Amino acid sequence: MTNDAPDHRDRILDIAAEQVRRFGEAKTNVVDIAKAMGLSHSAIYRHFRSKADIFDALAARTMAEEADLAARFAKTDGSAAKRLRGLVVALHRSKRAKLGDDPEIHGLYRRIIAERPDLVADYAQRMTALVRQVLEDGIARGEFRIGDLDVAAGVVRDAVTVFVHPAHVEQAVVAGLDMEPRLHAVVDSLVSAFAATRPHPGQ
Amino acid sequence: MTNDAPDHRDRILDIAAEQVRRFGEAKTNVVDIAKAMGLSHSAIYRHFRSKADIFDALAARTMAEEADLAARFAKTDGSAAKRLRGLVVALHRSKRAKLGDDPEIHGLYRRIIAERPDLVADYAQRMTALVRQVLEDGIARGEFRIGDLDVAAGVVRDAVTVFVHPAHVEQAVVAGLDMEPRLHAVVDSLVSAFAATRPHPGQ
Repeated sequence: MTNDAPDHRDRILDIAAEQVRRFGEAKTNVVDIAKAMGLSHSAIYRHFRSKADIFDALAARTMAEEADLAARFAKTDGSAAKRLRGLVVALHRSKRAKLGDDPEIHGLYRRIIAERPDLVADYAQRMTALVRQVLEDGIARGEFRIGDLDVAAGVVRDAVTVFVHPAHVEQAVVAGLDMEPRLHAVVDSLVSAFAATRPHPGQ
Repeated sequence: MTNDAPDHRDRILDIAAEQVRRFGEAKTNVVDIAKAMGLSHSAIYRHFRSKADIFDALAARTMAEEADLAARFAKTDGSAAKRLRGLVVALHRSKRAKLGDDPEIHGLYRRIIAERPDLVADYAQRMTALVRQVLEDGIARGEFRIGDLDVAAGVVRDAVTVFVHPAHVEQAVVAGLDMEPRLHAVVDSLVSAFAATRPHPGQ
């Protein structure tokens, strides 16, 4: 895999996503992607080892887009509580929108999430680092009293998983549930815990 | 389906579970279950409509066992914080143990959880009611200040899903992760939030 032509790489992924949308995962193949780009299939193989490799890269790109979305809340000004809430809401809505607008890509994404715990771990780590940044700002701003920032960022990650994990979001959408009031209630509790003066609650 | 012979029904489920353990889901069938019990297969059909019905009942029984486990913490004496923690830890360990000791049954359970949102919703509702009971006790004992008990019980349910949902527990076990420190950190935060004096944290 070469990295010298990121634009080419990105275009291959765009075309692959389009083919998955139109024909499904099974019927998408390297030869057709090459044809649609006016390239030989060996040109594709300079960037990706296989069709599976292209699909993994598609999922990784989706994850990178979500990290960019979350990063906006980490880097902005304003109350840490508000930014924490905004970050979680944005990720939840992004998952929900993708599920509705792009069901084929969502299916591919869900499958790869189940098969590639390493990609998921990377993603979780990036997200947790962004949350940690917001919490750290919250301490600096005097909003939060947090003993261990890494632990607190992990608490946020774990407590909101149900609102951002594609399988859970999909179940809620299928059941016609609006998860946002529940999401706000969980964020309320987290903010309340981080703002509380007692760092070690009684057993 | 008749309900006049619950013992018979239970024994059919025991035998079915044993067959799933030994031969897998696909190779388990009503005729073999009947044979192992010295019954005609029509005797089985008096209790269950189909093999799928038996498997659904197996999953429902597992859920009922977990509700019984959780109920012990709802009904006992002692600090509400401690009981809340005990309840979540017990459910987490139960899921983890089943995954290790009973992988075939766990697989069946995971599949049915994905296919039967109605069973899952019942289960979640029972569990949330038990959590609500513990939180209500916490208010009575002066440990917690909670504005809306239903919302708070829902917060616990959502925030600990990652520690009790079989798919997440399985991923952690496969990755060799001990989730318990993270579980304790989440419960710490919830307890801290419920004990906090400010019912409505600043946005």
